[in-house]
Amino acid sequence: MAHRQPALAVDCVVFDPQGRLLLIRRKNPPFQGQYALPGGFVDDGETTEQAAARELAEETGLAATSLALVGVYADPGRDPRRHVVSIAYRVRVADFIPRAGDDAAGAEFVANWKDETLAFDHNKIVTDAIAAITSSERK
Amino acid sequence: MAHRQPALAVDCVVFDPQGRLLLIRRKNPPFQGQYALPGGFVDDGETTEQAAARELAEETGLAATSLALVGVYADPGRDPRRHVVSIAYRVRVADFIPRAGDDAAGAEFVANWKDETLAFDHNKIVTDAIAAITSSERK
Repeated sequence: MAHRQPALAVDCVVFDPQGRLLLIRRKNPPFQGQYALPGGFVDDGETTEQAAARELAEETGLAATSLALVGVYADPGRDPRRHVVSIAYRVRVADFIPRAGDDAAGAEFVANWKDETLAFDHNKIVTDAIAAITSSERK
Repeated sequence: MAHRQPALAVDCVVFDPQGRLLLIRRKNPPFQGQYALPGGFVDDGETTEQAAARELAEETGLAATSLALVGVYADPGRDPRRHVVSIAYRVRVADFIPRAGDDAAGAEFVANWKDETLAFDHNKIVTDAIAAITSSERK
């Protein structure tokens, strides 16, 4: 493979039973201090599902019980640092008491998440996740 | 990003109106000489959809008219060379006369593709693509 490649990341969409969305406060640039979905880079040798569960646990302390693919986010401009392709999952968890990990300044279920401008293209990811949930419930 | 990451690839599932599947003959190892889906590695700065359309054109001469996500294939053992995560798309094309490009020893629509052992996990990708098509037609 001669060419440079995009980096590969994952993001997690987690709702609690009250419809609140799990968000972290970004500790580091870009979008420092802003709300974002839990997520991060995929390591060599782990599946994207494993990476999503690992990042969720590291950033929020919550354990994934199931993951469903939401979509692939590949716009070269979605991360100001470099080209990052993100695989987004809807993730179910067993308990709903987050605690922020080292990479996050905070982790909480947010009720008024629709009013927040999330980091990167995370508003679009959440919109797509909700559309996928609605579609699967119609089946 | 301190860690080594998986490589990122795309694969294309293309059927013709007779239900034949577009396959290439692999020119190079691994799986040299075997049938495979058209596809290849994603370049920095292109979306995964652009990569799929580019690889399809390079390997088969066919122009993509629409792409729909099938799934993400991330098993670390799916490629014997190294960890490669592949994003698979169902791709529609405008015409159905393939010609093999430099990277492929042949490109053709294959009627009896169900009898073939495809390279990598491509049999599974095709099965998933058909399930997704069937599911969307039921809606």
